[in-house]
Amino acid sequence: MKKFSYIHDFKLWEKEFDFFHSIKVRFSETDMFGHLNNTVPFVYFEEARIEFLGARGLQQEWLSKASEVIPVVADLQCDFLEQVFFGDILSIGVKVDSFARSSCDIHYKGTKQDGSVCFVGRGTLVQVSTITGKPVPFTEAAREKLLGSSKV
Amino acid sequence: MKKFSYIHDFKLWEKEFDFFHSIKVRFSETDMFGHLNNTVPFVYFEEARIEFLGARGLQQEWLSKASEVIPVVADLQCDFLEQVFFGDILSIGVKVDSFARSSCDIHYKGTKQDGSVCFVGRGTLVQVSTITGKPVPFTEAAREKLLGSSKV
Amino acid sequence: MKKFSYIHDFKLWEKEFDFFHSIKVRFSETDMFGHLNNTVPFVYFEEARIEFLGARGLQQEWLSKASEVIPVVADLQCDFLEQVFFGDILSIGVKVDSFARSSCDIHYKGTKQDGSVCFVGRGTLVQVSTITGKPVPFTEAAREKLLGSSKV
Amino acid sequence: MKKFSYIHDFKLWEKEFDFFHSIKVRFSETDMFGHLNNTVPFVYFEEARIEFLGARGLQQEWLSKASEVIPVVADLQCDFLEQVFFGDILSIGVKVDSFARSSCDIHYKGTKQDGSVCFVGRGTLVQVSTITGKPVPFTEAAREKLLGSSKV
Repeated sequence: MKKFSYIHDFKLWEKEFDFFHSIKVRFSETDMFGHLNNTVPFVYFEEARIEFLGARGLQQEWLSKASEVIPVVADLQCDFLEQVFFGDILSIGVKVDSFARSSCDIHYKGTKQDGSVCFVGRGTLVQVSTITGKPVPFTEAAREKLLGSSKV
Repeated sequence: MKKFSYIHDFKLWEKEFDFFHSIKVRFSETDMFGHLNNTVPFVYFEEARIEFLGARGLQQEWLSKASEVIPVVADLQCDFLEQVFFGDILSIGVKVDSFARSSCDIHYKGTKQDGSVCFVGRGTLVQVSTITGKPVPFTEAAREKLLGSSKV
Repeated sequence: MKKFSYIHDFKLWEKEFDFFHSIKVRFSETDMFGHLNNTVPFVYFEEARIEFLGARGLQQEWLSKASEVIPVVADLQCDFLEQVFFGDILSIGVKVDSFARSSCDIHYKGTKQDGSVCFVGRGTLVQVSTITGKPVPFTEAAREKLLGSSKV
Repeated sequence: MKKFSYIHDFKLWEKEFDFFHSIKVRFSETDMFGHLNNTVPFVYFEEARIEFLGARGLQQEWLSKASEVIPVVADLQCDFLEQVFFGDILSIGVKVDSFARSSCDIHYKGTKQDGSVCFVGRGTLVQVSTITGKPVPFTEAAREKLLGSSKV
């Protein structure tokens, strides 16, 4: 198995996912090489991350017009392991892998119908003040929501 | 030549374009059939329309935060005549074909490097009040700007 | 109700849909006006059309590598009736509205959760030979599949 | 300045770019947060990378139907430094940062009109056999082309 700087033990890493979002590959997302264009998994990450945050009870707060904090994606990365094709139904696992004061590291795992992992990825999500534009530390309540049952 | 309900005389119609915007087809805009995905010309229409409105001196006004009117696309259509491929450099012609009180009919013509017309299209642009949400008649000055030199 | 050149009686037209595909609006499909970008319904039409053709038993045949005929989209159009927002869950109705020898007119209806119709559209699908590039008449069996139970 | 695992000395790193590709941000590439959606820089990376490979004389070879090797993107990452808005004209710098036997590390730098760096990124490009699917070492000639004048 290929090595990833952000995954120490792949088997352990895999086990920690307990949120999954299903996405079917669109025809318009393929390219002339006949497979999923490599820019599209980032669209899937965004969709799955938002569903994850919603399931954890945080998206509602962050999307509220009155909210003084919003989540900002500071970086994103993806490793492509297997080709993905039109019509494939992918399961996108999402989890919070670690926390800093006002940011967290969100990890992603894309799996095909046959159980093979087709891509993995990660990105930093920073909680930012809509007023000052500066990072805002997560409350203990928000941390607990983000972790969900996955680390309990 | 195929017939289009919105083009009476193709030769005459073609001659009325005097604004052209150049777009190079991206790899990510192709699909597994090996050509430009048929949803992408609408993205090109939007890009070309905005460049056209900017060149006519209207986009600045409409995009200003203080503007009380905005342009709204009420409908869009495209006829596909020739396949388009990765790397093709298209010239997208844009013109105002006709006016109603508070809307205009914008026409598009996509041409390939070899001069062949690869797609044609049209769409209604309505000027709407940001306050009432209702259509607002174009001023005489706005009509003149939109027509530019094409009908003078 | 607005008039559409391709819809004679809206109430009757609506009743003829018996295939529906559900799509949730992605964050990345919105634009800075805060709503669904108007180029995206065409992506939804493609996704829904392919699901429809699959449900009618035709997509498998057309996507087979051995197939000597493929479906080609000759034109597309969309009328935008209501703004659509991030997270909206749309039901996209698809039906074959009429037939010509080697083409059919596919109609679309997008409905929001509250039952309001947010966009309608149509497009011609032509059956083309992969060998000659010319239109190929539908077989009687294909016509029956395309019509499904909707006109029985 | 933020730290990046793939950039040791930012000033030195910046100086090594000698290929730049210009891209204007499309309206359809913004999202409801009012700025460029964070999935789009990867589309820009692909467009700029292909232009870079073309300028280096490699894209023609790789895109030729007779080619027995093709470039495959093994991973991609992007760090977002500044918000990007509709109409911004970005300069995307591309360079080969380092080589392995059959792969190279391509780096990207996105700069706004005012000279500020809005995003940086990288990704591994692997040369793969279309017959065996296995990595194929770069020839000396290909390495020289990829490096261009930047490291001479």
